[in-house]
Amino acid sequence: MSEQYHAIYEELGMDVALHEQMVQSIHEGFERCVLSQTGRPEGMAYFDSLVEAAHGSRVQEVLDHKAAGGAFIGTFCIYVPDEVAWALGVLPLALCGGTGFTVPYAEARMPRDICPLIKSTLGMAFSGCCPFGGIKDMAVGETTCDAKKKTWDVMAAWGINFHVMEVPQTKGERTAALWAAEVEEFRTRLEELSGRKLQADALTDAVRVMNRKRRALAELHAFRAEERPPISGTDVLVVTQGALVDDPERFSEHLEALNEELAERVTQGISPVAEGARRIMVGGSPAVMGNWKLHHLIETSGGVVVADESCTGTRYFEHLVPEIEDDVDAQLAAIADRYLQIDCACFSPNAERMENVVRLAQHYHVEGAIQYILQYCHGYNVEAINVAATLDEIGVPSLTIETDYSEEDAGQLRTRIEAFMEMAPAVR
Amino acid sequence: MSEQYHAIYEELGMDVALHEQMVQSIHEGFERCVLSQTGRPEGMAYFDSLVEAAHGSRVQEVLDHKAAGGAFIGTFCIYVPDEVAWALGVLPLALCGGTGFTVPYAEARMPRDICPLIKSTLGMAFSGCCPFGGIKDMAVGETTCDAKKKTWDVMAAWGINFHVMEVPQTKGERTAALWAAEVEEFRTRLEELSGRKLQADALTDAVRVMNRKRRALAELHAFRAEERPPISGTDVLVVTQGALVDDPERFSEHLEALNEELAERVTQGISPVAEGARRIMVGGSPAVMGNWKLHHLIETSGGVVVADESCTGTRYFEHLVPEIEDDVDAQLAAIADRYLQIDCACFSPNAERMENVVRLAQHYHVEGAIQYILQYCHGYNVEAINVAATLDEIGVPSLTIETDYSEEDAGQLRTRIEAFMEMAPAVR
Repeated sequence: MSEQYHAIYEELGMDVALHEQMVQSIHEGFERCVLSQTGRPEGMAYFDSLVEAAHGSRVQEVLDHKAAGGAFIGTFCIYVPDEVAWALGVLPLALCGGTGFTVPYAEARMPRDICPLIKSTLGMAFSGCCPFGGIKDMAVGETTCDAKKKTWDVMAAWGINFHVMEVPQTKGERTAALWAAEVEEFRTRLEELSGRKLQADALTDAVRVMNRKRRALAELHAFRAEERPPISGTDVLVVTQGALVDDPERFSEHLEALNEELAERVTQGISPVAEGARRIMVGGSPAVMGNWKLHHLIETSGGVVVADESCTGTRYFEHLVPEIEDDVDAQLAAIADRYLQIDCACFSPNAERMENVVRLAQHYHVEGAIQYILQYCHGYNVEAINVAATLDEIGVPSLTIETDYSEEDAGQLRTRIEAFMEMAPAVR
Repeated sequence: MSEQYHAIYEELGMDVALHEQMVQSIHEGFERCVLSQTGRPEGMAYFDSLVEAAHGSRVQEVLDHKAAGGAFIGTFCIYVPDEVAWALGVLPLALCGGTGFTVPYAEARMPRDICPLIKSTLGMAFSGCCPFGGIKDMAVGETTCDAKKKTWDVMAAWGINFHVMEVPQTKGERTAALWAAEVEEFRTRLEELSGRKLQADALTDAVRVMNRKRRALAELHAFRAEERPPISGTDVLVVTQGALVDDPERFSEHLEALNEELAERVTQGISPVAEGARRIMVGGSPAVMGNWKLHHLIETSGGVVVADESCTGTRYFEHLVPEIEDDVDAQLAAIADRYLQIDCACFSPNAERMENVVRLAQHYHVEGAIQYILQYCHGYNVEAINVAATLDEIGVPSLTIETDYSEEDAGQLRTRIEAFMEMAPAVR
């Protein structure tokens, strides 16, 4: 598969054989969970290819970008404003791991009881399986959870060039000012890294690039409100995951084409979703590339995922940034403001999230919600109590599932999900 | 034991029989871990009595305080500035649970994989075993960890009057301003609660009261630097735990008397510590009243705990607040500034903590450090990596222990601790 990049991997000092095994393991999961589906839109072919590209052609693109004098940063959270990087010719790429393959390599050096997403990410670096780790000019962390926050400190102590953005924990005037200052500091840090000054026109252009991607994703997700969605929830997840790693312009182009195909499918009444499938909203922790476990279980247990209330769902694309011209400061302020609308569980209280959960459940005609909690993710795990109560108030039954990246609990989860499907009352 | 307060407990709607069982279970642990020691200072009698008082006479005192028109708040973190409450006639009391007895009651309603301190605290409330929960006028939470932060949201949703202070996650000018504003808001909230205005003289007095307690604790802990400390580490922990719940003036009075006794002991060469006992620093998570597990294990395995680098140790009493007269704003600013010196693992990066770990290890002539991690406490757990590396640099071996409030792992821990004692090189 990724043989043509072996020379590059050798040069990057990676463990080529182990990396090949990892890619193979990801591909097996992809075949089992995604490619096994039937009635998929033709336009999915491009997004399917991104899974392979993430450990192949995308690496080459990053190297080409660097060879042309551009900088490259790794990020771990959708709170990091890509626009600012993009406008400075800095390529940002989400380095979040979705494979269980590398988890043991992290557990050898870090506490076992931190979330699988962090462990997968770190394990990829520790095992020599991350093509991007060694070529990034800087890593950008944030303070959205204890485990990540403290991990950045450890990585910094181990010599990795880390910039940490403080995402506040409450929302209000004071913390909005704090966050705006953090965005401003991010700009300064990236100006130093890139050796460029942030220009108004470049920033407006970057905002447009990212907004275009957000609009295309919003359009994609909107199809899920259809009585019989023209695309499965698993496929929507695959597309959204791709948004975190692909070139934004190329991504938007392909997504706009897919959306056209989906509109046509709606007109023609084509849907891969079985009639009577339970309409499920998945909420909570993100499911990044490599992780299709829950969506696959739901959609092979009589359900269809019609909404993703997560960082690989609505949290990623909702809220456009106002496109302001000729005023860097105003544009930066608008960017800061947009990101602060993300209703991450890191905020206390998080009334906005409760409102959004209700809005999404109603908009997508949800019949049941499954709260997806990555094991040891305190934020979404504890907040699940308030989310379940909120859903209960509007008559939407919910099930909270805490799981990791392994397949060990798949049978048990399937039993619970099937029981939930039978329980969930049809409210259509 | 607490029979004389049964009528009060009935009136508070508590589960009197269960509460009695809990008190009994705490007392059994106290006998096993604390009272079983020999050669204890006479002055410990008062501090021993605080364990019983916490579920007896202290409740009566709080009720008397309320009957006299004073307000009462429950706190869960040493970041909450007691001075501000005290100056407004508001009695603050730390409601942190140190007993495993109530943990199952929390696990029935909350995720199991959050730390035992939070579960013990919540379980006490849920099981009708907390005398203070029902009489507090307000609970004051903070944002020092994900699990607590999100728990406050759940409690607020369940109708508990919660005020949450945002403790920042990085240290710098911006966040110092944020924290100062949080202290100011805390003042406003307590002024509303108490119906009083904060007066300069009352605030200065309150600062003096708390500083007196800090000085006395600092003097107590200083004795541990002696070659043969006149008091065990377990007893120092008992005293420090008492500081979180007792009346501060009475506490200081008794502690000053104990310190005199200890000074006399030093002169006379009296020590309960066996010659050649390994000098151990315990660092990381706090051990609140009811929790004497680790100190007991260390001090019955050939060690003596000579330093507590924790919220029930140095973090609690180091740094006095400058005593400023006739200027409420300046005094509040000084208070905010003092608290921001606490090097909680919630800060990223946490260079201050590394410096303090080195300073304490050297000052107390530490021969080994045991990092005490309450299970699922991501902050101290991940930071343990950097702490261990820091200790290693100065030649202090360390052992990281992650444990909960149960006794199930006591045997295994003892084996590990004994092995560590043999390994730790004497550096005296």
